[in-house]
Amino acid sequence: MKAAIVPTPGGPEVFSLVDVEIEAPGPHDCVIGITACGVNRADILQRQGRYPSPPGAPDWPGLEVAGTLLEAPASSPFAPGDRVCALLPGGGYAERAVVDASLLLPVPGGLTDVEAASLVEAACTVVSNLDAAGAREGETLLVHGGSGGVGTAAIQIAKARGMRVIATAGGAERAARCAELGADIALDHRAGWQEEVARLGGADVILDVVGAAYLGANVAALRTGGRLVVIGMQKGARGELDLGMLMAKRASVLATTLRARPLAERAAIVARVREEVWPLVPGRVRPVVHATVPLARAGDAHRLLDSGEVFGKVVLTVG
Amino acid sequence: MKAAIVPTPGGPEVFSLVDVEIEAPGPHDCVIGITACGVNRADILQRQGRYPSPPGAPDWPGLEVAGTLLEAPASSPFAPGDRVCALLPGGGYAERAVVDASLLLPVPGGLTDVEAASLVEAACTVVSNLDAAGAREGETLLVHGGSGGVGTAAIQIAKARGMRVIATAGGAERAARCAELGADIALDHRAGWQEEVARLGGADVILDVVGAAYLGANVAALRTGGRLVVIGMQKGARGELDLGMLMAKRASVLATTLRARPLAERAAIVARVREEVWPLVPGRVRPVVHATVPLARAGDAHRLLDSGEVFGKVVLTVG
Repeated sequence: MKAAIVPTPGGPEVFSLVDVEIEAPGPHDCVIGITACGVNRADILQRQGRYPSPPGAPDWPGLEVAGTLLEAPASSPFAPGDRVCALLPGGGYAERAVVDASLLLPVPGGLTDVEAASLVEAACTVVSNLDAAGAREGETLLVHGGSGGVGTAAIQIAKARGMRVIATAGGAERAARCAELGADIALDHRAGWQEEVARLGGADVILDVVGAAYLGANVAALRTGGRLVVIGMQKGARGELDLGMLMAKRASVLATTLRARPLAERAAIVARVREEVWPLVPGRVRPVVHATVPLARAGDAHRLLDSGEVFGKVVLTVG
Repeated sequence: MKAAIVPTPGGPEVFSLVDVEIEAPGPHDCVIGITACGVNRADILQRQGRYPSPPGAPDWPGLEVAGTLLEAPASSPFAPGDRVCALLPGGGYAERAVVDASLLLPVPGGLTDVEAASLVEAACTVVSNLDAAGAREGETLLVHGGSGGVGTAAIQIAKARGMRVIATAGGAERAARCAELGADIALDHRAGWQEEVARLGGADVILDVVGAAYLGANVAALRTGGRLVVIGMQKGARGELDLGMLMAKRASVLATTLRARPLAERAAIVARVREEVWPLVPGRVRPVVHATVPLARAGDAHRLLDSGEVFGKVVLTVG
């Protein structure tokens, strides 16, 4: 089968569509015939050689796919021919993927494969981190990167959870689109967000993809008992933490990733997504697909995501 | 009544034993005739003007007392004449204290008032922070400041909870005394602790009183899923946090204080201590009283605590 591999780390130009051997499925594995694969910032880090696939996963990128089930163990509730999507530890930039049956979800009713593939990783990231933060109905969530794949999902899922949502995005137009998705308040971060968040009373939970550059401002924006959840480091990994302020607020800083977790934890997250998010799709939670790009031009998909002009997700189409 | 007040912030010499008016008890308040009051580092910060009493509390220090109940509301399970101890938001350096009935505990069987007063704040701090960290049986706890009031309680309470305990203390002799209290491993921090903790596989939970100076090393010492709980800042409030390392470990940093919390939260913590710790006293959890000092010489008690030579607690005696 074909896969878009990274022969040597580098820029978007390094992708090469080549024939590769697919691993033989184990007794708990399914084989998916991929039609769509979501593109994530983690894929860019992987292409740059900064975020290799975990042991046992294919070494080409791709964390979320949709398509048709080709093979399934007898124990699976799915059967060959079913339309499915899945959370992968890697290997989605290809024609087929082998994946543990516990990481499969049905394609939600009414969605295309492209839409389903765009939603899996973001929904898993949002639900697992809102759960880790103990985010509750009535609390205020501040989402940085509200226009990204995770951000657009976070706004909708948190609203469905009964939270008040403040989103930041780059530019007034992108902020306005966050408001259209349901954000109660949407701020252009280029105009500064700290004063306005303070004026609004701060946040109980912050979902942050920026990292070090926002660390001090995020802690300052927390309410008493607040939880800052760092899921990306787009602007730095090392920042100054004011423990005195954290202590005065009885607050916490968590940082998480998804794909390095043990299979059982990832399977539990997929099950939580099926329970909490899938019933809301496509009514209260709608996929936001910015563009589709054929697998053979995976580098173009990365250039697009890197441009900062994407609202929502870029999805690769296969076949 | 007499109280040891701080007319102006400063060194240990500023204390003045004077006659003060005690507030009239409200409908939910008890009045305690104080015989003993534990001395805490927070009292030193308060004496220096860096940690004022919360609104509504007397402005002299003192967070934990024992003595005889003088007045109690009809709704209280305690009656005048009972020996009780209590968690205070301030005001323990005095002959009497007015305190909400929900913050009272019985003096555990077999303990003197001095011993009881030495244990209240530390037990509340340990239980609330182990709970906040979700500390579980079989996990490894690293306790910095193992020879302090909180540290000596933490070692014993965590062992009773079925945890493996690594304690650090200043000097080989103090470390040896931590081992006598039950620490599985006790390290002299002057000889360095990071390598040994790494060799032992790291910690699931860290209870830290050092703050900024240990922040990097503490995060490095966490296991996957680990929780660093900062409850003191003896060596600095601002330190560099490596979010990349935190993320790779899916770890978290919490910081808490006790006395600023709403009454209902403090009452819940006192109830947890009565449930978890009081049945273990004085069998598995023993008070560690280093010295007693009369209330009239409160400054000497602070000098002693500041000397760094105390193992366990210093307690003021009253009357």
